[in-house]
This record gives sequence, C-alpha cells and structure tokens, in this order.
Amino acid sequence: MDFIQIAKNAKEASLKIAGADVEIKNNALNNIADAIQTHKEEIFAANKKDLENAQNLVNEGKLSKSTFNRLKLDENKMRDMIQGVRDISLLDNPVGKILLKRELDKDLILEKVSCPIGVLGIIFEARPDVITQISALAIKSSNAVILKGGKESINTNKKIMEIMNNALAKVSGFPDNVIQQVFTHEDISQMLKCDEYINLIIPRGGNKLVQYIKENTKIPVLGHASGICHIFVDENANIDDAIRIVVDAKTQYPSACNAVETLLIHKDFGKKDELLAALQLEEIKLEMSPESWDIEYGDKILSVKIVDNIEQAIEHINKYGSGHTDSIITNNLNNAEKFMNEVDSAGVYHNASTRFADGFRYGFGAEVGISTNKTHARGPVGLDGLTIYKYKLHGKGQIVDDYAKGLKQFHHRDIL
Amino acid sequence: MDFIQIAKNAKEASLKIAGADVEIKNNALNNIADAIQTHKEEIFAANKKDLENAQNLVNEGKLSKSTFNRLKLDENKMRDMIQGVRDISLLDNPVGKILLKRELDKDLILEKVSCPIGVLGIIFEARPDVITQISALAIKSSNAVILKGGKESINTNKKIMEIMNNALAKVSGFPDNVIQQVFTHEDISQMLKCDEYINLIIPRGGNKLVQYIKENTKIPVLGHASGICHIFVDENANIDDAIRIVVDAKTQYPSACNAVETLLIHKDFGKKDELLAALQLEEIKLEMSPESWDIEYGDKILSVKIVDNIEQAIEHINKYGSGHTDSIITNNLNNAEKFMNEVDSAGVYHNASTRFADGFRYGFGAEVGISTNKTHARGPVGLDGLTIYKYKLHGKGQIVDDYAKGLKQFHHRDIL
Repeated sequence: MDFIQIAKNAKEASLKIAGADVEIKNNALNNIADAIQTHKEEIFAANKKDLENAQNLVNEGKLSKSTFNRLKLDENKMRDMIQGVRDISLLDNPVGKILLKRELDKDLILEKVSCPIGVLGIIFEARPDVITQISALAIKSSNAVILKGGKESINTNKKIMEIMNNALAKVSGFPDNVIQQVFTHEDISQMLKCDEYINLIIPRGGNKLVQYIKENTKIPVLGHASGICHIFVDENANIDDAIRIVVDAKTQYPSACNAVETLLIHKDFGKKDELLAALQLEEIKLEMSPESWDIEYGDKILSVKIVDNIEQAIEHINKYGSGHTDSIITNNLNNAEKFMNEVDSAGVYHNASTRFADGFRYGFGAEVGISTNKTHARGPVGLDGLTIYKYKLHGKGQIVDDYAKGLKQFHHRDIL
Repeated sequence: MDFIQIAKNAKEASLKIAGADVEIKNNALNNIADAIQTHKEEIFAANKKDLENAQNLVNEGKLSKSTFNRLKLDENKMRDMIQGVRDISLLDNPVGKILLKRELDKDLILEKVSCPIGVLGIIFEARPDVITQISALAIKSSNAVILKGGKESINTNKKIMEIMNNALAKVSGFPDNVIQQVFTHEDISQMLKCDEYINLIIPRGGNKLVQYIKENTKIPVLGHASGICHIFVDENANIDDAIRIVVDAKTQYPSACNAVETLLIHKDFGKKDELLAALQLEEIKLEMSPESWDIEYGDKILSVKIVDNIEQAIEHINKYGSGHTDSIITNNLNNAEKFMNEVDSAGVYHNASTRFADGFRYGFGAEVGISTNKTHARGPVGLDGLTIYKYKLHGKGQIVDDYAKGLKQFHHRDIL
C-alpha cells in the first residue's frame, strides 16, 4: 500500500476512534496485553532473527554493542512491555475532560472539552518495546498512529504489530487502521511531507534522527534533539548534596537525555577541590575547555566551568543549554528562586538530580517522551500531551446580531 | 539594524521580561494607553499620510476600498484601541500560575508553573490597531515581540511604535526591546528562518499571507488560513431558528472568518424551500455546485448542499471544512451530540450562529486570533495561548539512584 493511502486510512480511523468509549479502548489495551503474553514465543523467535542479523553487523563493526543490547528482548523486558500496556489501561481517560464550562448568556453554554489530536507519526530507533508503549498511548488518547521503527528490529516489529492488530480485530466496536506500520526511508520522507493527514510527529531516538526530522517537516514535532543538562553548584552549597547529586546525575545512567553534561561552580564555593576530587574518584572524566560546552557526552565525562556569580551561571545555561533540565545546588533560597525563574528550561530544579526529569517519576503513569518545545507540551509528556481541545457551544437559537446591537448582553459566568 | 540583531535583542528582552512583576507589566500597559491618548493627533497625522498614499492606490485600482477602510483610524477606533490596552491590564496575569503541585516523595515537591513562550513574530496586514493590541498581549504574557505590519500603514505603525516605546522607556524596571518593529519583505524571510530566536509566529491577515507563512517556516505558526464554516440544518430543525441563525452567520459580518460559507440541509427537512426563500429575501446568493464547497466567499454568497443524513453532513464537513467552526440546527439532542463529537473542528455548535467564535464573546477579554491548529491552542486564543509551562522541582538533596534501588519510593500526592 502506498503511504498516502496508509495516511488516509489513519485519518479515517482517527475520526472513528475520537469518540470511542473508554471501555472499548481499555478492552483493546487488555486484549493487546493478553495477546502478547499468549504469543510471546513468536515474538522471541522474530527477535532472534533480528539479533542474528544484528550480531553480524556488530561483528562487521557496523552496529554498536549498545544498539544490539537495546534491540534484545528478554523475559524481563517482555514482562515490562505487557505490564506497560496494562498500566495505560488503568490511567484516566484523557479525552472528554471538561476543561471549562461557562454560561455566556442565559441558555448559551460554552464547554471546552479535551479531544484527540488526530494522526500521530512516530519514528523510532532500535528498541522494539517502544511499539507497544506508543500504540497503547495512542489508543488510550483516541489518536491513530503510523509507526516507523528501525530496520534492525524489523522482524520483531512486524510480529508485534501483527499480534496487536489481530488482538484489536477482536474488540467489538474498535475501528480498523488505528495502528499501522511503515518500513522504508521513502515512507519517512512521505510522512514528513504529509501535513494534510498527519497532525504530530514524535521522534524517539538519537540527536541526529530528531534533528533531521525537525529540519525536514512542517508538521509539529514533539520531542528533544539534545539533552545538555547543567548543575550549578552555588557559593553556599552543601558539599555532600553537591557530590551525591552530581554523581547521580552523571553516572546513574550516563546515556540518558536527563544526565548532566556540564557542571558550573561558583568561584567562591570553598569546597570546589573536594567536589572535583570526589567526581574523579567515581571515574568521571572532567573537561574544562570552552569547546565542551555544547557537547552531549552520554558517557562518564563532564564539562566543568567556574563562574563568577549566579547571573553568569544562568546566562551560560540559557546560551549553551538545550532547555531540557537544569539544577542548582544551594542553601540560599533567594538564589534557588532566581535560578528557577530565570533559567529558560523545561525543568528547573533545586537540590535534586536532573535524572528526576521523567514522566513516571513525575507521576504521569506513562510518557510519550520529553519535549524541549516552547509550545504545546514541554518536559516529560504524558497522555495529556496527545490531546487538544474543542469548544462546544450549546445554544437555543442565539444570534450574534442581538449582542452587536445591544439587545442582549453576555454575562460570562463560569459554572464549573 | 539587521534582523538577526533585532531577534537577538528580542530573545534577551524575553528572558528579562519573563520574571517581571505583574505591576510593572500593568504600569507599562497604562503608560502606553496614556501616551496614545496624549499623542493621538500625531497618530492621526501619520495615518493621514498613509491614507493619502492609499487613496492614490485605490484610484489606480491597486488597493481595494475595504483595505482602505481598515487602514483608516478615526476617533472611535482610537478610543477602542486605547481601551483595548487598558482592558488587557485588568486581565489576570497569565504567567506564574501553578497548574499542578505534587509531592513526589517527602520533601520533593514538583510544581508545574505557567510561563511565557519567549519571542513572538507577528506578521499582520492593513489594520494599524493590531499593533497596540498584540503589543499589549505580548507584554501582559511576558513575551517579547517583533512586529511586521503592512506597507500601507507604515507611517501609522511607525508613529504608534515610537509612542509606545517612549512610554515603555519611562516604566521603571521594564526591559528594552520587548516590542520591536521590522519593515521589509526581506525581514519576513529572515523572521521565518529564525527558529533559533523566534518561538512562535502569529500571522494576522488573509488566506494567502497565512498560507505563505505556514509553508515557509519551521517555527510553530498559530492561526488559521481559511474559515470555511458550515451550518447543517437537520431533519427536525426549527425553521425560525434555522432562518435566523443562517442569516446572522452569513450577513452579520460576511468577511469574518467565522461567517458561514456552506449550508447543508437534510433531504427530509420539510421547510427547505421556506428556508432558501428566506435567505434569498436577505439578498444572499445561493450556489449549488460541487466546485463551491471549498470556497471562502467573504461575501453574501452561500454554498448549499442537500445531504441524505447526518453522517453525510459530518463527512462533508470533515472533508471540505477548515476545522474552524460548524453548527447544527436540530431539535434532536442525540444528533446534536453526535455532530459535536464527530465534527473535527475547533468550534462545534448546536442551535447557535457560527459568528460566536470569538475570544471576546467566549469571555477571554482579548484574543490573539483564532487557531485551527491541532496542537498548542485551538479556537479563539486568549492570553493563555501565549504561555507554556515549566516544571520546578524543589528537593532536599534527593538522587534517582535511591529510587532505582528501591531504597525510597515515590508517593505522588497532589497538594493542590
């Protein structure tokens, strides 16, 4: 099938699922979880094929060991995948929420109601578990989705998709084509051009992939290209907090986007040497050159800069940061407040590790990803980020001319 | 000054105004209103120059009479302009609102706080009163703004801008360069490319302008290209309601984006002929050809189509509409609900004129414009549409490793 037909089908499916009862959507999710459980050996077999191909690429030096590891499904990942889908069935229905209810005039009631965005285009790399997670989030938020996975996991992705769509076919009242998959680079090109049918693109993958997508589409893109997070250790920081937080933010999972990349230290922080020594003890490599200020290492390397004052720290972050997550370590509450107000990032923290920037840790139950956008959704994005709203106006024959002529007046009384 | 420097200055100003006290912002607005009042004769004089140039263009057939009229400032428009700025000073501060407050764990408090978007790029056509309205909205929402007005109103725009910036210079604590103006087509090209510094583009003008902008920028665009609004007269509509609402929606202000363009009538609506006769009595020209279904007339012309049932009406609207505002006239509440749920538009109305789609009528106090976007903001957009949010996390030295190892657990308790 050509991409435009897939996109048209997705659009049609999105209009049908928009009004689906939450029970149907939850049945769909539980059916998917059951089906994956039942057919998990088939998924492992498909994954084995991908791993064999990938192993050859690793041997030839064409694929990294870490990509290979992300590709591999084991019993633990399978269990998490299934549980992840069930968890989403337990979350509140994000659509149909009444966000505002206002009487504009007698018998003229305005409601602002949450509703799905429409059709999502998802482009992701190696991890095949993304496919169930994103599909589940799309279903719960009544959006249709077109998924394009990495070629390394093509057999696994195809098998999971087949199992999910077989499961959905058995759900009474659930429309066709809510979740669809495409496979080629040509499909990506077409997806990025398809603003007639696709309402939002969500890339899940490395810096290069996201940057490429952002530069090649007019469709809104939700995500982040890079995560250059900072920690500023202020003049009167507690040394123990500083060491523990920087070590956690750098080493707990160095390749995460919310890992710290640059440490800024106030020139008058007395325990500077003790801090740097402690970091080196944890085998963190320190870089002090200006060339390092916009590098996302994804590794146990940390850029370090001494700053004269908090203003310089804030200026540095707003200049070199990626607007992701930045933290201040200080006992001075005024400085903490100044930092949190003036740093223009999705997450601004006081005395906490940047690694907390995550939808699950924030209590969103599931996350689509982390956004550094300045519109629509910012920071860790849960189901709400897959919704927009519409205005419903319930009248009894009212016309504007009566208000324009002063025969009637609006009274704008909120009733919710 | 070259555009990039202007954009950099705007970015810098946006970081400074982000945390400005609401009193400073309101002082700024009242100073602007006072200054326009004081210097209004200078504005009229500048406007007179523009009108003289425009009159020549009208005589040469190069400018429409309606554009000429929009260009003209008179005492009434001046009073509305000044009052509009004062009204915005009275609205709630849209930034610094706590949207969520959650204890993730003991002494680990997450806040979601509304904040400005950053730098707005506004491209507008003839009406010079847009300049004060948008500037006032930008100031109130703590955004910086770069305005590009139509060349027909260049003298008026320059004079208003000069008066506004002189007024702002006298406001203690108000940063420079919050409102700036550019003048050339080359500036527009540069603005559209300037995604490094500009966070949101808002076009205010005709279909062509908006379409051009949407197709030539990666920066998010808030607005609508066209307003093809529908009214569906269902089988059991009240004939009086139908006539009054369609006449209002078509004739009360035919060139507005929320005026109706297409009338869909259920084939079994018994008073079809009475309805069409009444519309013709109001000098509405009726068009019945399929070629007319995606035309925005902006005039007293109405496309008419007979449909077999409500499903066909909904399908027609979702296919040919622009997602702006669509209304059903019916006494059948089930049909009303079905229509409002299944029509994928920013506004879905029951027994009311499409002309109600407007920020003032919705009670937003002021509006940036009307959006047909499916992300960020949809429908009439008030001050809230010029904000996003950031997450503030207040800790006491917490690290993620303790939670990853199970030494601590999140309890996610909302405290607001």
